[in-house]
Amino acid sequence: MITDVNKNDDFFNDLSPDHTSPYDRFPNGSNCTVAAINKRWQHLTKVDTKITAHVSSLYAGEDLSEYASNIENCIGTVKVPVGIAGPIRVRGTYAQGDFLLPMATTEAALVASYHRGSVLISKAGGCSAILISEGVTRSPGFAFNTIANLATFSHWVLLNKNKLSETAKQTSNYCRLIDIRIATEGNHLYLLCDYTTGDAAGQNMVTIATQAICEYIIANSPVQPEYWFVEANCSGDKKSSAQSYTSVRGKKVSVEVKIPEKLVKRFLHTTPQRMVDCWRMSALGGVMSGTMGVQGHYANSLAAMFIACGQDAACVAEAAVGITRFERRDDGALYCAVTLPNLIVGTVGGGTKLPSQKSCLEMMNLPKENQARAFSEICAAAALAGEISIIGSLAAGDFTSAHKSLARDR
Amino acid sequence: MITDVNKNDDFFNDLSPDHTSPYDRFPNGSNCTVAAINKRWQHLTKVDTKITAHVSSLYAGEDLSEYASNIENCIGTVKVPVGIAGPIRVRGTYAQGDFLLPMATTEAALVASYHRGSVLISKAGGCSAILISEGVTRSPGFAFNTIANLATFSHWVLLNKNKLSETAKQTSNYCRLIDIRIATEGNHLYLLCDYTTGDAAGQNMVTIATQAICEYIIANSPVQPEYWFVEANCSGDKKSSAQSYTSVRGKKVSVEVKIPEKLVKRFLHTTPQRMVDCWRMSALGGVMSGTMGVQGHYANSLAAMFIACGQDAACVAEAAVGITRFERRDDGALYCAVTLPNLIVGTVGGGTKLPSQKSCLEMMNLPKENQARAFSEICAAAALAGEISIIGSLAAGDFTSAHKSLARDR
Amino acid sequence: MITDVNKNDDFFNDLSPDHTSPYDRFPNGSNCTVAAINKRWQHLTKVDTKITAHVSSLYAGEDLSEYASNIENCIGTVKVPVGIAGPIRVRGTYAQGDFLLPMATTEAALVASYHRGSVLISKAGGCSAILISEGVTRSPGFAFNTIANLATFSHWVLLNKNKLSETAKQTSNYCRLIDIRIATEGNHLYLLCDYTTGDAAGQNMVTIATQAICEYIIANSPVQPEYWFVEANCSGDKKSSAQSYTSVRGKKVSVEVKIPEKLVKRFLHTTPQRMVDCWRMSALGGVMSGTMGVQGHYANSLAAMFIACGQDAACVAEAAVGITRFERRDDGALYCAVTLPNLIVGTVGGGTKLPSQKSCLEMMNLPKENQARAFSEICAAAALAGEISIIGSLAAGDFTSAHKSLARDR
Amino acid sequence: MITDVNKNDDFFNDLSPDHTSPYDRFPNGSNCTVAAINKRWQHLTKVDTKITAHVSSLYAGEDLSEYASNIENCIGTVKVPVGIAGPIRVRGTYAQGDFLLPMATTEAALVASYHRGSVLISKAGGCSAILISEGVTRSPGFAFNTIANLATFSHWVLLNKNKLSETAKQTSNYCRLIDIRIATEGNHLYLLCDYTTGDAAGQNMVTIATQAICEYIIANSPVQPEYWFVEANCSGDKKSSAQSYTSVRGKKVSVEVKIPEKLVKRFLHTTPQRMVDCWRMSALGGVMSGTMGVQGHYANSLAAMFIACGQDAACVAEAAVGITRFERRDDGALYCAVTLPNLIVGTVGGGTKLPSQKSCLEMMNLPKENQARAFSEICAAAALAGEISIIGSLAAGDFTSAHKSLARDR
Repeated sequence: MITDVNKNDDFFNDLSPDHTSPYDRFPNGSNCTVAAINKRWQHLTKVDTKITAHVSSLYAGEDLSEYASNIENCIGTVKVPVGIAGPIRVRGTYAQGDFLLPMATTEAALVASYHRGSVLISKAGGCSAILISEGVTRSPGFAFNTIANLATFSHWVLLNKNKLSETAKQTSNYCRLIDIRIATEGNHLYLLCDYTTGDAAGQNMVTIATQAICEYIIANSPVQPEYWFVEANCSGDKKSSAQSYTSVRGKKVSVEVKIPEKLVKRFLHTTPQRMVDCWRMSALGGVMSGTMGVQGHYANSLAAMFIACGQDAACVAEAAVGITRFERRDDGALYCAVTLPNLIVGTVGGGTKLPSQKSCLEMMNLPKENQARAFSEICAAAALAGEISIIGSLAAGDFTSAHKSLARDR
Repeated sequence: MITDVNKNDDFFNDLSPDHTSPYDRFPNGSNCTVAAINKRWQHLTKVDTKITAHVSSLYAGEDLSEYASNIENCIGTVKVPVGIAGPIRVRGTYAQGDFLLPMATTEAALVASYHRGSVLISKAGGCSAILISEGVTRSPGFAFNTIANLATFSHWVLLNKNKLSETAKQTSNYCRLIDIRIATEGNHLYLLCDYTTGDAAGQNMVTIATQAICEYIIANSPVQPEYWFVEANCSGDKKSSAQSYTSVRGKKVSVEVKIPEKLVKRFLHTTPQRMVDCWRMSALGGVMSGTMGVQGHYANSLAAMFIACGQDAACVAEAAVGITRFERRDDGALYCAVTLPNLIVGTVGGGTKLPSQKSCLEMMNLPKENQARAFSEICAAAALAGEISIIGSLAAGDFTSAHKSLARDR
Repeated sequence: MITDVNKNDDFFNDLSPDHTSPYDRFPNGSNCTVAAINKRWQHLTKVDTKITAHVSSLYAGEDLSEYASNIENCIGTVKVPVGIAGPIRVRGTYAQGDFLLPMATTEAALVASYHRGSVLISKAGGCSAILISEGVTRSPGFAFNTIANLATFSHWVLLNKNKLSETAKQTSNYCRLIDIRIATEGNHLYLLCDYTTGDAAGQNMVTIATQAICEYIIANSPVQPEYWFVEANCSGDKKSSAQSYTSVRGKKVSVEVKIPEKLVKRFLHTTPQRMVDCWRMSALGGVMSGTMGVQGHYANSLAAMFIACGQDAACVAEAAVGITRFERRDDGALYCAVTLPNLIVGTVGGGTKLPSQKSCLEMMNLPKENQARAFSEICAAAALAGEISIIGSLAAGDFTSAHKSLARDR
Repeated sequence: MITDVNKNDDFFNDLSPDHTSPYDRFPNGSNCTVAAINKRWQHLTKVDTKITAHVSSLYAGEDLSEYASNIENCIGTVKVPVGIAGPIRVRGTYAQGDFLLPMATTEAALVASYHRGSVLISKAGGCSAILISEGVTRSPGFAFNTIANLATFSHWVLLNKNKLSETAKQTSNYCRLIDIRIATEGNHLYLLCDYTTGDAAGQNMVTIATQAICEYIIANSPVQPEYWFVEANCSGDKKSSAQSYTSVRGKKVSVEVKIPEKLVKRFLHTTPQRMVDCWRMSALGGVMSGTMGVQGHYANSLAAMFIACGQDAACVAEAAVGITRFERRDDGALYCAVTLPNLIVGTVGGGTKLPSQKSCLEMMNLPKENQARAFSEICAAAALAGEISIIGSLAAGDFTSAHKSLARDR
């Protein structure tokens, strides 16, 4: 660590560039045939013979061609154990019924905790879920010589929204521009292009549509930027951003449940009042540590369900934000709500067509229509189950012991 | 969506609790024997015969007992394709050499992009990496009747740090309390207990140690809280927090590389100047959208490497923050640096001992000593490769076409 | 301090409530006649005879009735010294000309620094300023029994926007509703009511309009909330919020200037390159410390001009955010831009009609039309002058000595 | 506005630099003699004869030499009306007694609101106040050629803390270095130099001490930076930063009060329960809009008291952050607490010695010892009074009517 550093030649040698020794670049390619994968293993084991021991756990010699448009330089598959939580009863605008939650994780106690929360929610008659809004954004950036040029450009873009919308439409059957907003900083302009993307998560779809929009603009605008980029990091892609709260990214969903005091006592061994105390202190703990929104561990269910169901697991970084609220109602019951403004999910595209991922998705028995919307409501419902379970165990004082016993061989 | 809602009986019926119909709770348990898993499938296929079709992709009838302390309610495994990027040459304080990067993802173009960045970094002599600091925090919360009581309690805790440190030590051979800090809000007190955890990521370890510390405090403190919780959400666990920047969570690592202009042109088809322009606009785009730190897509490599190497994938939510900086140097070269203050990683514990995950970890050929530290430097180096590759493709204008061609069957 | 606390009776006594001793409530009232003010002084000097010594510096026996709608319990006036910086040449969409900047402050070096920046900007031909957008928000909050009720309410509100707009219009000749947006969190709904307010800052105006809107809603909505509040802290009033960047609060203004290298050297004794280096490090310093936006010291000019010109000085808390950017252009010149998204300013109402404040405002010689818009452009131009001056002195290394010599008698 | 822009020559002309016309730079200087001020007025009125009308309201011909080290280019004083709220009973670790609150503002209803809150708190036996911690930071920045050099430098600095502390001590009788922390980003290093500054707010004091420290480092360090700046914007100076919550800036103070239900009803015409409902919704409104901490309007009292008492009004931008919490206790009473982590205040230096400002400070009757600490507790107590009053009026529904009647002539 930096505090251990002392000035000596070794330290400087260690960190300075090493241009001398050769290295073997891994042979790149996106074929996933048996031959292609075997060739990659030959390369690996030639470089380091110890690697031979690892072939079997990653690759059993099968043809993986169906993975070819999801991965490059493929050498096999990692096996992530999947457990089932629930079912959880969801009374939603798109999700209606009792849903099993497939969760892929290597963390002990995770599935058990969501299972407990799901069962309790179902016992209480299920949770109400509502999709508030949806949209995926790309934010190309344009740099101008002067603010005056930026203003003229901006004016032209707003006047030509319809044409841009038409341009986007031609790139896909599903991608539809719903709005273009403008954010400016000095002589820099960011276009916030908001789209709906059907049942796909849609990040690639909106990239392609935005590229087309930008090219149309560049070809037709009366003012040219000095330079421009198809994405200038104002969209919140792959990172949590405050912007999600003031608009939406992906899907924004709220889920609530009211749990009678006696169910809280029976299932969680604590009281609504103590859980509200725990929520209040946790919410302000989040505020003090500078989190976005206030919540406990949405990331756990989102990561587990995203991996199981072929979602983009990197989107956990942006999706795991929101607001959890617990209240004690006049009748003594516990009111719990979660609101997630940044659920990037899809039921087509990405990893959803791969064999095991597709199985997990289909086991959920989503409705035929509005699948992605229904899935987003279920993801938020699972997050609610997790918040209830964790606050319950913290309030009851059995959080530590539960983790200890389930990760028992450590 | 909320904007489609109209007042009608159906809508209210849809969202109101449904106490009447029965439901089948999934049978819980953490056994992973063939018998146990088959029993779970029998339950599933009895409830819904269509599910039968999905058994084979998730479960091939093998004994999964080695997963038993990592999952509950297990029904099999999800297969995530893994590709190799690199090797990437790392000149670090703990990682020294050319490292293969195993990446598990279902997103096209991801491995290819990191591969390109890794090869370019290696061509430039490798990147310098340094572990700045480390520590994992738990933040129990204590609520008092009055601020006066809180003050007395706080005073006592600070006087008894040594005893608390001793208490923590007795819970583990690896977990060591390095500091206790205090954060207060009105009559609420949060203890920020910072630990080192050897080569483990350590979240469970620090929970157990903190439980012991709290119990010691409660048994001995001259003042009692009204109530307390072993974690009160001030630790940044599973969520990005501003606090990571002002201290550390997990491991804080910086990595830098200087790339001659001609290599930039050859590999990325653009110039250092245009990449700096793109960085600047992206950094401020991040600021405007309210992100923590400014970076492009750390989440992509972290999610892919965390899944491949048996890390806690939910920690992507907290780890994918940091600062990327690009500069054009006087000699025309491109200087690139990343700093990640919140790398929660381990090389023992969690999913690291599962077969395919262990293989990925071992293929990296980490040093015997300080494995987790070396791994954190490699994770940060991979993030650097990704930032260079994405800014390169945005600056060169081939971001969209690269994604289009690699996800070619969509 | 908390770290000095030891458990002793004194400490507990000190902090516990004291119900016993009597106290003299200060006689309240908003009259500002000589008699009313003298009566207040009699009260004060009766309670504490030492106070007599302070009468003269605060009150010279004059009639202050013109202050009566700006203050309660008035005992006189505090005298804040005012200096003039500039003039600064502004080439704006509303502000056109060379403007004197009246700045009220007690901090040495402040006026001198803005003066230097203003003179330099003017030497460079002036700065370009553009009002990007405007609007003031109130955010009433409504709590419902269930999310289903919230959805119905939300639907009704959106359908009745025109009627609500009409209702707002009837409360003022200047206040106009431009949009109503909806933010939800569980069963809580926040209406974001955006208004234009003519040349007034408008916070009171929008409160009154929003009260009328809420009362109309309550009287006519098919669904009733359990409770509601005319403001529920989602508007950013009196505090910096990330939301300002994604929309606007008050007025959003960008200002830019390009300064030739030789002027930088002559006026600031440094180079554009070193100033860009300083900007870059400062911008990332802001990011690391968790600020909103990245800037140096907008607060200095805003506080000084707000106090001088009768603005609401508490709005400095929200207005002093934004983004500063410095770049070195190909011709060696320094490009500087500031963007302030949250300028709450007005040229009528509040303190603008008080004698000395009105004088400061009028000395600026604002245009007759769009006065508040022009004033916002000048405020942002002043902020730009300050950023250039401070970065210049930090880069040149004379920041400390300048402060030392101007605050010379300390 | 940008949306009104149309491409026309006028628009471009308006915004382009104007190098042609001459302008009159305001004659700079920090003398405040009658002659110097009159000379400035002559300059102003020569440029614009209309300005003559404004002389009297700003300048009555008096000698202002005592302002000379607080202002440059002085032309007189702005008169800000000051009202008295309270007294407020404070039971603090440094402030003990019933304190009058001098508030300088031009906003109707402000003093009345704080007066109401102060009287209510006093009726309840006063509020408990505790200074949690204190310290003022400067953050010089150093840029190195490589991370390796940074590491060596960092190591050397940490080894030489005592010498640096000694160096700082020699610059002032009051300024004491309490810690040096290090924050790094790539090859950039920020030193976080924390000081105590006696009864002064201390920003200038810590600048001078830090300059000395930096010069010592540069003269003695085995490694030289490429460049460095005495402040690199990592200190939170003049802007709200998340960092304040995790450490302290200036003084961190908590204040609490418990108010019986009957007092709430009598004074505020509402109930503790409804106030807690209002707090909860407001706190989450703050979270959703992306504020730092959650509070209502600390800025109002801070701005008013800072102006009245000769504090640096620009520090409102950083000081107006914190956490407000309301709870309903088991006995039906209302518990209220505020925690302000960033109170930059002093009772010597800055504007505290100017006549009217000094009078306001002295009227508060602060203790002789630890004056600034006591003042910080009173500032936080005033903030508490304001939170209670505003939440009370929002909950009772009389927020709008109160503002309407007090700003009655608008």
